[in-house]
Amino acid sequence: MTSILTPFPSNANFPKGVVYLIGAGPGRADLITVRGLQILRQADVVLYDRLIAPELLDALPPHAIRIYVGKKMHHHAVPQKDIQQMLIHFARQGKLVVRLKGGDPFVFGRGGEEAMALREAGIPYEVVPGVSSAVAAPAYAGVPVTHRGVARAFAVITGHQAAAHGGQPVDWSAFASIPTLVILMGVTRVREIVAGLLEAGRADDTPAMAVEWATTHRQRIVRAPLGELPEKIALADIRSPAVIVVGEVVSLGEWLAWSPLEAEKEEGGGAGSEK
Amino acid sequence: MTSILTPFPSNANFPKGVVYLIGAGPGRADLITVRGLQILRQADVVLYDRLIAPELLDALPPHAIRIYVGKKMHHHAVPQKDIQQMLIHFARQGKLVVRLKGGDPFVFGRGGEEAMALREAGIPYEVVPGVSSAVAAPAYAGVPVTHRGVARAFAVITGHQAAAHGGQPVDWSAFASIPTLVILMGVTRVREIVAGLLEAGRADDTPAMAVEWATTHRQRIVRAPLGELPEKIALADIRSPAVIVVGEVVSLGEWLAWSPLEAEKEEGGGAGSEK
Repeated sequence: MTSILTPFPSNANFPKGVVYLIGAGPGRADLITVRGLQILRQADVVLYDRLIAPELLDALPPHAIRIYVGKKMHHHAVPQKDIQQMLIHFARQGKLVVRLKGGDPFVFGRGGEEAMALREAGIPYEVVPGVSSAVAAPAYAGVPVTHRGVARAFAVITGHQAAAHGGQPVDWSAFASIPTLVILMGVTRVREIVAGLLEAGRADDTPAMAVEWATTHRQRIVRAPLGELPEKIALADIRSPAVIVVGEVVSLGEWLAWSPLEAEKEEGGGAGSEK
Repeated sequence: MTSILTPFPSNANFPKGVVYLIGAGPGRADLITVRGLQILRQADVVLYDRLIAPELLDALPPHAIRIYVGKKMHHHAVPQKDIQQMLIHFARQGKLVVRLKGGDPFVFGRGGEEAMALREAGIPYEVVPGVSSAVAAPAYAGVPVTHRGVARAFAVITGHQAAAHGGQPVDWSAFASIPTLVILMGVTRVREIVAGLLEAGRADDTPAMAVEWATTHRQRIVRAPLGELPEKIALADIRSPAVIVVGEVVSLGEWLAWSPLEAEKEEGGGAGSEK
């Protein structure tokens, strides 16, 4: 039987009694990795976050236990410690346990904390990296985070961390001088983020944008000069999940914007037209 | 017939006469996205880079034309302009054309330039994001690029660009004050990169590492305080492809290092042991 994954092993039996920290990717289901999906298809227990595509949960075997542990703004559905305890508990029962996280598990995903708890408990684990929305959200808006002659580096931060609750204030001067800045989970704090960047010397006419529900069918984009971005976001009622991008590369998006070429839509307008 | 991709469409017909800019991921074949692999399986023509996993080329249909356009150090196998002309040429012939690139096409991949050439020529295109080695290489060495209380942001640059040939010199002060710095393609220039960071105030005992051939079976890791990294890289004869990481998160890797849990190996030591 040939599957779409030939020559990839489609009937490999992944070991049990272990935890897989899997990145689900930026939103649309088919941007998960092949390895991530292969493991999901054999999961006994899945602890999953908010924003996981429903198709990924449909890919689980019927017997799999599905546990929602997503956090909502200002409200932890399940405390992080409890998540870690559950991972350990089910692994010790000999289950194939998946911790399914949006984007990449080691990019603002608290995956490091989970790995640490597993290591302390002596549970074997594997990290399955995922496509981060830090890169995919701009790409789906036609914006490369780097581009010759425009931006030769990029930095990534979250809005939560930018706001420095309890911690040290952010040194915006460093971020203000990196060509492309990507801010995850930043819409609710966009005013203070933009104020910090402007105060640190970033020009208020720097091209900027927010991409809401990037890569999904609900994707929306707003663009504005940096100084006007907070107002534009409020006017368009852009909400979480959204990715903010600041830098000259944003202006490339007006020219390079594209839409996914779905089989159903038959959008291949160029096909044979010049034959 | 159920495939491993159920409920993902396994027999979707992707449109032809278009170009897909696909990220192959960080090295190991099964870290490509599901969507990327689905499209590959229907490709008529593939222009591929150095470092693409052979299994991905094996996944192509038998009739597919395979064109190697990889660049070697100081030697462009195929000039960028010619790559773009070929993409346009084959798309105009009504082919399903894939540009298969290591990592993510819009992260230092010149994908933006290719998209621009396609847009100018009126050829429809889609970007299929990939897992960037900027995140996956550290993860495969047990290092999360961000971690609560350790690093709340990261920046990514390449060694080529760090060296500023022809362009402006790099402002290392910005990069020196971002908690985690990831440098792609940096081993041959590691001396000037480290010198730049130290001069900009980064402490010479900052944990640092290089990961060679990350995510593949050839993966090797060397760790050293920043000031000793160039010597350590030379001693271990670490060569391209390699990812350098600088920051406190690197020390987490000594504790969190892990190995992929292959089905064949039956490494699930915890399985059932506590039942």
